Amino acid sequence: MPTNRQWRLAARPVGLPDKSIWQWTETAAIDPKEGEVQVRIHELSLDPAMRGWINEGKSYVPPVGIGEVMRALGLGEVAVSRHPNFAPGDWVTGIFGLQDYATAPAAGLNKIDLRVQPLEVWLHALGMTGMTAYFGFLDVCDPKPGETVVVSGAAGAVGSLVGQIAKIKGCRAIGIAGGKDKCSYLVSKLGFDAAIDYKTEDVRAALETHCPKGVDCYFDNVGGAILEAVMANLALHARISFCGAISQYNDPDGVTGPRNYRQLLVRRSRVQGFIVFDYAARYGEAVREMMGWLKSGQLKSRVDVRQGLENFPDVFLKLFSGENNGKLILKII
Amino acid sequence: MPTNRQWRLAARPVGLPDKSIWQWTETAAIDPKEGEVQVRIHELSLDPAMRGWINEGKSYVPPVGIGEVMRALGLGEVAVSRHPNFAPGDWVTGIFGLQDYATAPAAGLNKIDLRVQPLEVWLHALGMTGMTAYFGFLDVCDPKPGETVVVSGAAGAVGSLVGQIAKIKGCRAIGIAGGKDKCSYLVSKLGFDAAIDYKTEDVRAALETHCPKGVDCYFDNVGGAILEAVMANLALHARISFCGAISQYNDPDGVTGPRNYRQLLVRRSRVQGFIVFDYAARYGEAVREMMGWLKSGQLKSRVDVRQGLENFPDVFLKLFSGENNGKLILKII
Repeated sequence: MPTNRQWRLAARPVGLPDKSIWQWTETAAIDPKEGEVQVRIHELSLDPAMRGWINEGKSYVPPVGIGEVMRALGLGEVAVSRHPNFAPGDWVTGIFGLQDYATAPAAGLNKIDLRVQPLEVWLHALGMTGMTAYFGFLDVCDPKPGETVVVSGAAGAVGSLVGQIAKIKGCRAIGIAGGKDKCSYLVSKLGFDAAIDYKTEDVRAALETHCPKGVDCYFDNVGGAILEAVMANLALHARISFCGAISQYNDPDGVTGPRNYRQLLVRRSRVQGFIVFDYAARYGEAVREMMGWLKSGQLKSRVDVRQGLENFPDVFLKLFSGENNGKLILKII
Repeated sequence: MPTNRQWRLAARPVGLPDKSIWQWTETAAIDPKEGEVQVRIHELSLDPAMRGWINEGKSYVPPVGIGEVMRALGLGEVAVSRHPNFAPGDWVTGIFGLQDYATAPAAGLNKIDLRVQPLEVWLHALGMTGMTAYFGFLDVCDPKPGETVVVSGAAGAVGSLVGQIAKIKGCRAIGIAGGKDKCSYLVSKLGFDAAIDYKTEDVRAALETHCPKGVDCYFDNVGGAILEAVMANLALHARISFCGAISQYNDPDGVTGPRNYRQLLVRRSRVQGFIVFDYAARYGEAVREMMGWLKSGQLKSRVDVRQGLENFPDVFLKLFSGENNGKLILKII
């Protein structure tokens, strides 16, 4: 059996997850049992949600245990199969973990077709990230043509898709992102109507300018002060899709509600949290529609591919410093 | 013209609205102009929302201006009419203000029938309070039979109705109220399944006991720590109706979001604010259904009637100390 390099969780983080919480191990890859498949992982998806998975305590999935291989979505090639539906050479996605080889029950794998879209797109627009954008925006915000949609983390993996879907659905799309380059990319390449640079602009005032009739839909990836700025600019009957709160993930106080919470009442608006896994039965529908938009060029999948499993601890932190441009992927082969 | 006693707003409150913010005036009642009606007010509705109306700043209605008669819902008898639809002796409700006589355009008045239900019920279950409970619960929470419904301020005007409507709709109803007497009243007289005394019990632990499958619907009148206790006990896909946050109305920091806001995401749940006025077109539907429940005895309207317009500043504070039992009404004639 080949050597399997792994990142394991060594300790629970306090604040920003520095290198000390990870442990590098090398072991032999595990032979699949009957009904299992061994996958040679090529690319790993690095997601803000991973920060939540390493916290103690009850959440929507059990936390990664101390000493366990860190959980991560990935994409790879079947190396050994002991299940009739999979053969060596098949390309698959799944929750593989931060390692070279995953040996897992076939039930958790999804076959993908690299003739249709390249590798990275299957981890982005056609993967869990795309499903998150699709259902978290369309199902939770229920946008109507002509409405004003604001998305934070707009240059990130999910946000960049949400803004583009908003445009496809006939809405005005305003992105909030960090830095001039990201903002001009959103407008010039992805078709956003406007972008607000939270690093240099007063977000609340900029929203007033760009959303004179108020914000009808807000797709929230960041929480905190930006959420409060949007709450101060809600249209009547606004819908906030609560996808994440990355600005507070490393805060020792955790993710707290907006200080101007009463705006929900004043503006008769709602906040709705969601978890993409709840939409599993409808992924097919989303993949078909997203695939059509990708083919027609209406939807662009921007990925930021970094190299080397050994670099994971540093690369992961780029999500929190905002250094990634689009979907952050770690290529390990 | 008769003398019209009035309470006017003299200053904006900081914290609890003490007597110093009110000004007593006596003036002549105003003759109605063409299309207007002069109403002799009999009873005034004292509502937590009034605390919000005297704050500076943008809200769902303009704030009461300094020097203006304090806004209040009321019920009275037409004294003089210059509108064909109203005649002296008609009983009407409307936004009359804290005074003996209101002279107002006929468009803002609703005729009521005292042969059907007594005076107070028209200010409670069949008035704006009842509409708030009806739409804020049924429309916003969308409860299903068998679900667990929690309501805070459960012995108050709105909360006592919400719990009873929950029972009528086949739900389990758990009330949160302050004090042993209120709690036993909820269970023994109003048919709640259980009541939690927030003054002596650990609300979070008590909710765990009474809601082993979690809270499906929460009708929130109070916000703050009790909201956080409920958030810690949400069932998956729970719906929170955000009606009010009386625990924070007198807090200089205002109404802030729950510290465990992330539970909305973890439990895929939503908070929805509402304002009863948005349902004006559907009041008739609610009045008909509530009237039926009142007649059949399924719904009880509990009112706490206090005497004397001059006592308003003290009586109003009972809403915040929790000294009222049910709907607080000021009888002024």
